[in-house]
Amino acid sequence: MNDTRRGEARGHVVALCGGIGGAKLALGLSHAVPGEQLVIAVNTGDDFEHLGLHISPDIDTVVYTLAGIVNTESGWGRAEESWCFMEALAMLGGEAWFRLGDKDLATHVERTRRLRAGESLSTVTAGIRKRLGVKACVLPMSDDPVRTTVETGEGVLPFQHYFVRRRCEPEVRAVFYAGADAARLQPDIAHALASPHLWAVILCPSNPYLSLGPMLAIPGMREALTRSAAPVIAVTPLVGGQAVKGPMAKIMNELGIDRTPASIAGFYDGLIDGFILDRADAASASDMDLPIVIEQTVMVTLEDRIALANACLSFADRLAGDGSRKERVA
Amino acid sequence: MNDTRRGEARGHVVALCGGIGGAKLALGLSHAVPGEQLVIAVNTGDDFEHLGLHISPDIDTVVYTLAGIVNTESGWGRAEESWCFMEALAMLGGEAWFRLGDKDLATHVERTRRLRAGESLSTVTAGIRKRLGVKACVLPMSDDPVRTTVETGEGVLPFQHYFVRRRCEPEVRAVFYAGADAARLQPDIAHALASPHLWAVILCPSNPYLSLGPMLAIPGMREALTRSAAPVIAVTPLVGGQAVKGPMAKIMNELGIDRTPASIAGFYDGLIDGFILDRADAASASDMDLPIVIEQTVMVTLEDRIALANACLSFADRLAGDGSRKERVA
Repeated sequence: MNDTRRGEARGHVVALCGGIGGAKLALGLSHAVPGEQLVIAVNTGDDFEHLGLHISPDIDTVVYTLAGIVNTESGWGRAEESWCFMEALAMLGGEAWFRLGDKDLATHVERTRRLRAGESLSTVTAGIRKRLGVKACVLPMSDDPVRTTVETGEGVLPFQHYFVRRRCEPEVRAVFYAGADAARLQPDIAHALASPHLWAVILCPSNPYLSLGPMLAIPGMREALTRSAAPVIAVTPLVGGQAVKGPMAKIMNELGIDRTPASIAGFYDGLIDGFILDRADAASASDMDLPIVIEQTVMVTLEDRIALANACLSFADRLAGDGSRKERVA
Repeated sequence: MNDTRRGEARGHVVALCGGIGGAKLALGLSHAVPGEQLVIAVNTGDDFEHLGLHISPDIDTVVYTLAGIVNTESGWGRAEESWCFMEALAMLGGEAWFRLGDKDLATHVERTRRLRAGESLSTVTAGIRKRLGVKACVLPMSDDPVRTTVETGEGVLPFQHYFVRRRCEPEVRAVFYAGADAARLQPDIAHALASPHLWAVILCPSNPYLSLGPMLAIPGMREALTRSAAPVIAVTPLVGGQAVKGPMAKIMNELGIDRTPASIAGFYDGLIDGFILDRADAASASDMDLPIVIEQTVMVTLEDRIALANACLSFADRLAGDGSRKERVA
């Protein structure tokens, strides 16, 4: 109750997030910020067309997580899933490298149908998350296609081919976000970031290069963050030099980036007002010249998620209160 | 073995068929005629686009039946099917009136993908039936769209809307086959019908108005039947004035057609050389002025299906032998 009242009093929160790790903090935030006062801007750089279907992996992970129907073991896909479609498809010689569960498939079929009928990805996403009982405002970062593409030792690969089909094995030489230049920032996200009623902006512990990078590459996004009326806080996705999940540490090595919290903060340089470090990296705090909070960022339980969400909001309160935000903006 | 040798000696057989009843006889024929010497021309007038997928109900029923994976209780769809996709789709507010099982869905997704990639329905069907181990040559009646459309008391309805969504309840005033005029008879069917090595043509016990009518409306099909070198035999779909399954009897009433075998034979007037009546209608034989054979046409067991198939082929042998075919063609 206390958090809810605070939410109503303090305005809305914008969270930028990718898939699994980001979705965990988004779930925590949804317990601290009421209803559509939580605006979750989700990476769509991982989206792709597969089997004639429009797949939006990060949006689905966020929506399923907030709806309480995610497979908590894998972090993606639906709980209590079955795989009859996939087995039958393999029997027909169809492409089976990207696994689509029977229930999950309904999301892709319905999304694709609505997109073909002319609805925007934002409208389709709103329809789906409302049907699944998700009250937070989950939005694609853009209604225009942005496609994260990985230049590797095996050539240029679309993201899912790198990530799923090739299991992140090829060496990454560069990452680019095809289409980002021409994409328009989703208008409700732009509006939320420009609002004087903004409480905080949270960069969730997602992969900076693969999940938040695409969002920051959309024209106007960086400016929207620097001009926002509220503190911008990033939560480290790196714990003791390792990623909790996914290929981030491997990619940092391949790109020649030190696997330190300072590298992550550096990626967000000029955009953030505060950085949340994991306890495992407490010693790194002294290397960094921006406000730091040390927390447990590995989220195992729901309580962990809510605690980290509240830590983000308290940090934002403190930064707003002591004027460190104002200073930077000025 | 005997049947197989006979098949090799006697050339190929073309079966024209719709869904459930037709597929049963097609299965019987596949035990009597080896491999691709059995050419099954399947109605695609029931095909439609649904949820962005190309659904070919009759082709799937024939392929699943011959592959031994059909749901034998309903006669359509796959055996041991699950419905997780459908339940999840309903949860999202998607259209759930046309039931697509999880395994069955793989067929539609794979077919749609290949059609969009530029393959013909014939090629896609060949790929699918081969993967499922079906040796008979199952072909769509045309690679061009023909859409059976029903004029009813509730207006003009696409076939599946009439058949599934409205459960055949609206009164039928007329049936037409949109696109048939411009459709090209599938070339392998045309070739098989024109071949001197043709043994028999069987019009399976399918609904004449809804399943074989679309095929007969394709330019060249009627001529191909009348000019064929082999006897053309129809098997009644009407038993004691009733349809074994489906809305045929109701439709005959609504169209003011007597529910007699003579009406069915009349629909095929000028096209067939012989007609197989059910035992229940033995008394009707005297009303008809074409060669008649009386058989058990209700196929409950596999043996029933094979027996009826052999009866068709023996009938064709007799008609070819006694010159009644030649007489008509001349």
